[in-house]
Amino acid sequence: MHAYRSHTCAELNKSNVGETVRLSGWVHRVRDHGGLLFIDLRDHYGITQVMADPDSPVFSELEKVRSEWCIKIEGNVMARDESLVNPAIPTGEIEVFIRDLDVLGKAEELPLMVFGDQEYPEETRLKYRFLDLRREAMQENMKMRSDVVMSMRKRMWDLNFREYQTPIITASSPEGARDFLVPSRLHPGKFYALPQAPQQFKQLMMVAGYDKYFQIAPCFRDEDPRADRSPTDFYQLDLEMSFVEQQDVFDTIAPVLAGVFEEFGGGRKVDAPQDWPQISYRDAALWYGSDKPDLRNPIKMQIVSEHFAGSGFAIFAKLLEQEGTEIRAIPAPTGGSRKFCDRMNKFAQGEGLPGMGYIFWREGADGMEAAGPLAKNIGPERTEAIRQQLGLGVGDAAFFLGGKPKAFEAVAGRARNVIGEELGLIDKDRFAFAWIVDFPIYEQDEESGKIDFEHNPFSMPQGGLDALNGDPLQVLGYQYDLACNGYELVSGAIRNHKPEVMLKAFEIAGYGEEEVKSRFGALYKAFQYGAPPHGGCAAGVDRIVMLLADQQNIREVVMFPMNQRAEDLMMNAPSDPTSDQLMELGLRVIPQD
Amino acid sequence: MHAYRSHTCAELNKSNVGETVRLSGWVHRVRDHGGLLFIDLRDHYGITQVMADPDSPVFSELEKVRSEWCIKIEGNVMARDESLVNPAIPTGEIEVFIRDLDVLGKAEELPLMVFGDQEYPEETRLKYRFLDLRREAMQENMKMRSDVVMSMRKRMWDLNFREYQTPIITASSPEGARDFLVPSRLHPGKFYALPQAPQQFKQLMMVAGYDKYFQIAPCFRDEDPRADRSPTDFYQLDLEMSFVEQQDVFDTIAPVLAGVFEEFGGGRKVDAPQDWPQISYRDAALWYGSDKPDLRNPIKMQIVSEHFAGSGFAIFAKLLEQEGTEIRAIPAPTGGSRKFCDRMNKFAQGEGLPGMGYIFWREGADGMEAAGPLAKNIGPERTEAIRQQLGLGVGDAAFFLGGKPKAFEAVAGRARNVIGEELGLIDKDRFAFAWIVDFPIYEQDEESGKIDFEHNPFSMPQGGLDALNGDPLQVLGYQYDLACNGYELVSGAIRNHKPEVMLKAFEIAGYGEEEVKSRFGALYKAFQYGAPPHGGCAAGVDRIVMLLADQQNIREVVMFPMNQRAEDLMMNAPSDPTSDQLMELGLRVIPQD
Repeated sequence: MHAYRSHTCAELNKSNVGETVRLSGWVHRVRDHGGLLFIDLRDHYGITQVMADPDSPVFSELEKVRSEWCIKIEGNVMARDESLVNPAIPTGEIEVFIRDLDVLGKAEELPLMVFGDQEYPEETRLKYRFLDLRREAMQENMKMRSDVVMSMRKRMWDLNFREYQTPIITASSPEGARDFLVPSRLHPGKFYALPQAPQQFKQLMMVAGYDKYFQIAPCFRDEDPRADRSPTDFYQLDLEMSFVEQQDVFDTIAPVLAGVFEEFGGGRKVDAPQDWPQISYRDAALWYGSDKPDLRNPIKMQIVSEHFAGSGFAIFAKLLEQEGTEIRAIPAPTGGSRKFCDRMNKFAQGEGLPGMGYIFWREGADGMEAAGPLAKNIGPERTEAIRQQLGLGVGDAAFFLGGKPKAFEAVAGRARNVIGEELGLIDKDRFAFAWIVDFPIYEQDEESGKIDFEHNPFSMPQGGLDALNGDPLQVLGYQYDLACNGYELVSGAIRNHKPEVMLKAFEIAGYGEEEVKSRFGALYKAFQYGAPPHGGCAAGVDRIVMLLADQQNIREVVMFPMNQRAEDLMMNAPSDPTSDQLMELGLRVIPQD
Repeated sequence: MHAYRSHTCAELNKSNVGETVRLSGWVHRVRDHGGLLFIDLRDHYGITQVMADPDSPVFSELEKVRSEWCIKIEGNVMARDESLVNPAIPTGEIEVFIRDLDVLGKAEELPLMVFGDQEYPEETRLKYRFLDLRREAMQENMKMRSDVVMSMRKRMWDLNFREYQTPIITASSPEGARDFLVPSRLHPGKFYALPQAPQQFKQLMMVAGYDKYFQIAPCFRDEDPRADRSPTDFYQLDLEMSFVEQQDVFDTIAPVLAGVFEEFGGGRKVDAPQDWPQISYRDAALWYGSDKPDLRNPIKMQIVSEHFAGSGFAIFAKLLEQEGTEIRAIPAPTGGSRKFCDRMNKFAQGEGLPGMGYIFWREGADGMEAAGPLAKNIGPERTEAIRQQLGLGVGDAAFFLGGKPKAFEAVAGRARNVIGEELGLIDKDRFAFAWIVDFPIYEQDEESGKIDFEHNPFSMPQGGLDALNGDPLQVLGYQYDLACNGYELVSGAIRNHKPEVMLKAFEIAGYGEEEVKSRFGALYKAFQYGAPPHGGCAAGVDRIVMLLADQQNIREVVMFPMNQRAEDLMMNAPSDPTSDQLMELGLRVIPQD
């Protein structure tokens, strides 16, 4: 028999009755039924009930055993009494009578219980992560994360992609976030950086002819912490392909993700890739107030300026006289009560707006009637035109926001979410995907008038060099995101692989040729040696697992996370360097006050 | 038709004759046969011959095309003349007559040729890595590396291991090598470290009940460069298992590695796992002068002290009067010539020894005769006894080294290699594996007498606490390496999971309880909460790929390697930080002279 176990704690069933077995695991729970001792013995795979009475030669030793001790037992498999069968677990038909015991590892008094679902403060959980990770929910999340990544790899291999590892100790990258630096010992005073993403390397691989690359890639950004991201690093399913157009990238990644969501979604509905809409950045802003809309929410906003222009509602009528202003409506089916409308109005005020005007429709004495202050101001004809445009009826409402779209789009988007949520319009058992396309290449700072890249400086402008010679603010890029349930899951682009287009694109954003050469030298040079058209994307692994595991905090899906102050409380990081280390690196720490 | 290609450059054959196709790729070679232009068009998958004559509407454009331009062509597939079929490539039966051309990316004059096998200086290759990587040999090596890692993963999954990612930004680790540090911005003056290995994390996962872990894990060590390792990082197939003994680890990893070597060994013989000998550290030193012996070499050294004790060879006879000395023989079958023996003697002198005594056997006037100065000194009886012990005969030789084994074992091992190599005793088409077991836990510094860990401080001593209470230098560990063809491929151990044994083990090496708690706090604490027995190992991925690809330099099997000064010549790393970056990190660079 194996030194530690003949079976795992999930294996024994009726067919093993009568066998002598050896099990190892942790004491999940001890119950003392007056001379009868029951232990739920737990390992990674399951739980087996083991028990003893005073006839067992190790009964007195067993009485000392406590929760979370790691033990090995030997004993006989016995059928449970019919009435004691536990159908909830695979081993529920049997129990093991303990004849021998070996304590493999005792446990001190526990700072957190493994058994049960008690909540503990983050500090306790992270300091004693090795106990926290024993809990069933954590085991399930970690297994799922591992299985999701496995599934991604298998799916990518099936598509003839190869995984190539890119450097982790490398050069400072121009992705826009803050780099983590690594001081060099061989070159004191100089620093490496950890990659914010393998962006440049994957593009260089395309230039080198590797055709189809992917990587489950660690990415490092020294960003200020947030619950839904790690303060140090995150993982992406990163891919890049040569000789492709935008649609090719969509056709590649969409089935991979849909497959993963089907496989791990626990039966929740997954929109089929051919049904994922492609929505322009501009339309997404208009319809959903977001470039990562939650399409489970059926609400689609509309422009209703014409109904307010010159109307009796002076605020909007005046507003519309300014250039670039619009009035937009958020239809709220089933939201037709004053109470609800007032609550939403309050929400808008909480978001810093003066409020949201609204109309709602109810059954009146003479049939349907429109209620709310706005309806009175603009009169029945305009009100009815609005109702017809929005396709609303009795019991529904509509909210209105006005101004320059940029100024209220984000709030409108949040209002849409809240309305959808409160009215129960959102199907929680669904993963709804949408491609957001046609991102503008540039944006203009309102105050300084300076033009800068809106997103990623490496994207190919639609229309190429010709387009760049026109109005840069009109130039769209072959650049795209995939939104799912209100989150950005994927971001990508067809890259700008032409050196002359690259120079022009950077020139518009104020970078001279010398700066391009010094900051993006490897890519710029590589593009001069026969660069293929190429593109790709990166999908956020942590985010995908959070969605699948229905978790809001990154620490629930990462084995050993940092806390929100970027500290590892278990390993004690970061910590003070030794003076030898600093000397070798040629560094001095500036005393902080 | 797809915008860039209807087929890859490896796909077309006779069955496509008559079709109109579109291909994209690089101009591998251009041949101008007087009005007939042939281009070998290359992509990641293969080469297709495309051609044109002046009838082609794009002939004049085609004449401008140069090596390594990235182009797209459209044309008709035509069968080649029987006499022009190239059976060496899958597309050798056809060629494509070019009707349309699109230059996707021009190339400047090439600093290195992709076509052919010309050698270039490392600096050129690394600076233009995107071109170097286009070369056939590099493409094959990179594909093999990717496929080896894929195969490892699939094999581990098949054994029900899950891959879990461990932190990359973490705490300084006590593996013995130098850490790379990462300054913290949120905690100025404090530093994270990149992990030298996931050792502590994988052990913590075992304490957390994850049972079977593996990871293709990046490991970071700030070591001085060597041709066969990267100056910054390397990859391991890292694994750990709970409730196991040493043999369980062997039985797990051996079939994985044997399978990988079978799969990618190109037909070279792979010793079957059940035939991998388990050789004690001590025997390996005696027999092979190395703890990573090359077992393709049949030479096994032996102790021959008795034949020299009190003999007429005064140097060895005197030596043997000192305590702890030995005479060892290196048998050299087929090495029986004075010329060879003298050359080996010279080798030993080059290694800093006074020389190696030798005897060789030849056909004399009266049958076999022993020649060489040693034979004369010790006389025929002793000489014959040596010959019989070593099982040698006419045409063979033996070399002798004496002293304290520690002082000459390594040289003896190198002599064994050279002898085996020069005599052609080594089967180059074989992968020969051996487990090296029973490593001592401690070693003693000869001068200071100080006792320190020989290898890894986390290994379980054989005999546990009792053994530690005896002579520490006699204590062996459950610690093992796997050698293959003279390289260490795997290293591992059954871990010390008992806090009291851990404390004692560290105490012997001079670490007090407080130091153990502060330096290995997470593990030490975790072991007090029900730690299971566990063990594992790590296999060097880079080394395995180097063996399989038959390469001596790490840069041949790594996509974007550093040079030997730990610089990335393409990305320009390391580089100067900005003063803002230093300020944020609370650091000052000490000016170097």
